[in-house]
Amino acid sequence: MSELADYCRETAERARRAARDLAVVKGQVKIDWLRRAATAIHAKKAELAAANEKDLAAAPDFGLTDAQVDRLRLTDDRLESIAAALEQVALLPDPVGSVRESTIRPNGLVVNKVGVPLGVVFFIYESRPNVTADAAALCVKSGNAVVLRGGKEAFHSNTALHALLADELEASGLPRDAVQLVSTTDRAAVGEFLGLSDLIDVTIPRGGKGLIERVAAEATMPVIKHFDGICHVYVDRAADLDMAVAIAVNAKCQRTGVCNATETLLVHREVAGTFLPRVAKEYAAAGCELRGCERTREILPDVKPATDEDFHTEYLDLILSVRVVDDLEQAIDHVEQYGSHHTDAILTNDLAASERFTAAVDSAAVMVNASTRFNDGEEFGLGAEIGISTDRFHARGPCGLRELTSYKYVVHGSGQTK
Amino acid sequence: MSELADYCRETAERARRAARDLAVVKGQVKIDWLRRAATAIHAKKAELAAANEKDLAAAPDFGLTDAQVDRLRLTDDRLESIAAALEQVALLPDPVGSVRESTIRPNGLVVNKVGVPLGVVFFIYESRPNVTADAAALCVKSGNAVVLRGGKEAFHSNTALHALLADELEASGLPRDAVQLVSTTDRAAVGEFLGLSDLIDVTIPRGGKGLIERVAAEATMPVIKHFDGICHVYVDRAADLDMAVAIAVNAKCQRTGVCNATETLLVHREVAGTFLPRVAKEYAAAGCELRGCERTREILPDVKPATDEDFHTEYLDLILSVRVVDDLEQAIDHVEQYGSHHTDAILTNDLAASERFTAAVDSAAVMVNASTRFNDGEEFGLGAEIGISTDRFHARGPCGLRELTSYKYVVHGSGQTK
Repeated sequence: MSELADYCRETAERARRAARDLAVVKGQVKIDWLRRAATAIHAKKAELAAANEKDLAAAPDFGLTDAQVDRLRLTDDRLESIAAALEQVALLPDPVGSVRESTIRPNGLVVNKVGVPLGVVFFIYESRPNVTADAAALCVKSGNAVVLRGGKEAFHSNTALHALLADELEASGLPRDAVQLVSTTDRAAVGEFLGLSDLIDVTIPRGGKGLIERVAAEATMPVIKHFDGICHVYVDRAADLDMAVAIAVNAKCQRTGVCNATETLLVHREVAGTFLPRVAKEYAAAGCELRGCERTREILPDVKPATDEDFHTEYLDLILSVRVVDDLEQAIDHVEQYGSHHTDAILTNDLAASERFTAAVDSAAVMVNASTRFNDGEEFGLGAEIGISTDRFHARGPCGLRELTSYKYVVHGSGQTK
Repeated sequence: MSELADYCRETAERARRAARDLAVVKGQVKIDWLRRAATAIHAKKAELAAANEKDLAAAPDFGLTDAQVDRLRLTDDRLESIAAALEQVALLPDPVGSVRESTIRPNGLVVNKVGVPLGVVFFIYESRPNVTADAAALCVKSGNAVVLRGGKEAFHSNTALHALLADELEASGLPRDAVQLVSTTDRAAVGEFLGLSDLIDVTIPRGGKGLIERVAAEATMPVIKHFDGICHVYVDRAADLDMAVAIAVNAKCQRTGVCNATETLLVHREVAGTFLPRVAKEYAAAGCELRGCERTREILPDVKPATDEDFHTEYLDLILSVRVVDDLEQAIDHVEQYGSHHTDAILTNDLAASERFTAAVDSAAVMVNASTRFNDGEEFGLGAEIGISTDRFHARGPCGLRELTSYKYVVHGSGQTK
């Protein structure tokens, strides 16, 4: 075995041992750690900023764009937000040990389904250093050990944050190895970890599609994947058009670079003539480019034509595809054919249409009369999230503490035999 | 692409289309199908038995043991049981479409977590033909299409059962392709299906360890695995020894060839002198061979020595490893080191010991004062099961209808924007 392979295996073995301790620790110890870590971030802002400066100074070497450099920067406010996020995770209910379901069998057996950690999480992410603290907080709170693999652009920031988190683990009486940061930026390390299915229970990649595809192909353990969000808003013929304008604009423009932003607007032909000119004015005011189907362009002649490719595209930008559809069924078929099963909304006051859309559209979140932007762990009441799964297996949609756990059956009897 | 590859892809594509229809069908239609199929089994017993005769006649060519031939045989009683199992699945609550959790957010959004099918299941199994009907029933009831791959020894029986099930699907207005049987016994077909992650959502192999390992290694989609059950009964110093004798004998001897049968008995040293001679007498009466550690053999000198290998072995036979342990912690360590995290029991009247054991032992089922034999979907109140998962991800322990489903969030608003 190579030195790198040895390093990766030893790291994962340490995580596995830490996970065993962490699984049976009292919730208060984890809460103490989160609060201590928040306090330490306040106390060590200067050190963290200094480490961040090294990354910022090296950013041009990595060819980062201005937007990427901005995301990398740890301002005073952002450090406060990181600390606040830790405090918030401390307040969330502990998913480990509580009874999720309970049945008493006719023979008197009490069958309880009890939350348990998944074990060891391998978490791969890209530039933003706040993710280091967020992911560590969610994993430890759910009783999991985590091996963090951050982007090379944020290496110094991540290292400083990780040292702080690990020091506070020790200070709280928790195993330091519960949160480890991969100390090499060698890309081959990812491949090594992905081969360790005997030690790592789940891999969570957060980043571009290329990263996630590579991880899914190479991983020998389960992966919680977060692919693209080609999200739709369908304006039904029975929509309240004032509401529809507000939601359609919000879903596209409130923030564009996120997976739950809408990429395609579908409009029932009976309301297209009234609705499209109104909403187009708002999009123009927001600086949003429209690309329309032929029927859209009959109503809005200045709009560029949309190609088939456009309807398959996650723009993550101020661009929107627009299509006029014949009816609800055509809208559903469009979502099935072009969508990514992430988040799709129907705007309507027609109960039967709402029921048909929510039953037939098989997406992680299906919204009625609300913006697609609400598909989010915090908005759904799950607390903070580690990502939004586009899988169907284990976790779908926002992944919070619960999705980082499994369960076991604890059965109490009084001498039952079969 | 080869002809075989074409065949497999087309089969999976048909299943995918059927799954889309099946996902939105009313529960009553699925119930009707299950009842019609049960009636048809009663009506076609002679045909089914004739098909089974062909398999039985060919059994010597496959080198089946007497026990295997017995499992292959479709007697009148067994056909009645298959029909009865279909009737039972009909009675289970439908896992699709019901709200599992519901939250109202401060902004008025109603966030419902709703059960949905996984999609397409690829189910691989070995000789017993009743599994054809059981698996089809559970998959369709949970809204999934299924591609069945049975053992070559049961090919004629499976073909006859499948034809009946598919005919009744059509008669009930359901897509015939919702249940398909792989029509070739070519082993390469399994490999082809395992590569179709774009069409198949989950693979469930049921059979020997070799089959499951091969499937887990080759599959490109999630797999629900069912590995071995090295299950333990630990008799604590605070156990009721009468109860302990009854449970220890039941857990080993009631049925030996099953995964939840106990393979190792751990006994606290303080009660070993009293307990072991008593239980040994019962095991002798049941024809069960004991293999003991040194301390066991001091108490029971006629017992053969147990090797380290014994403690790692799933006998599936009337053989039991026995070890005397110093205390609860040594019992927990033994279970962790040698067990397969399937089912482990503590027998005790000591509350603290019971709490420590159930918290520290990380197995799919942890029993207190009950036989390990109860780790079973029906005994846990899940209804029929498609297997017992030894995974931590998605499904752990008995897999019933619920474990064959995923969920989506259906969110109702009244114009909310972010």
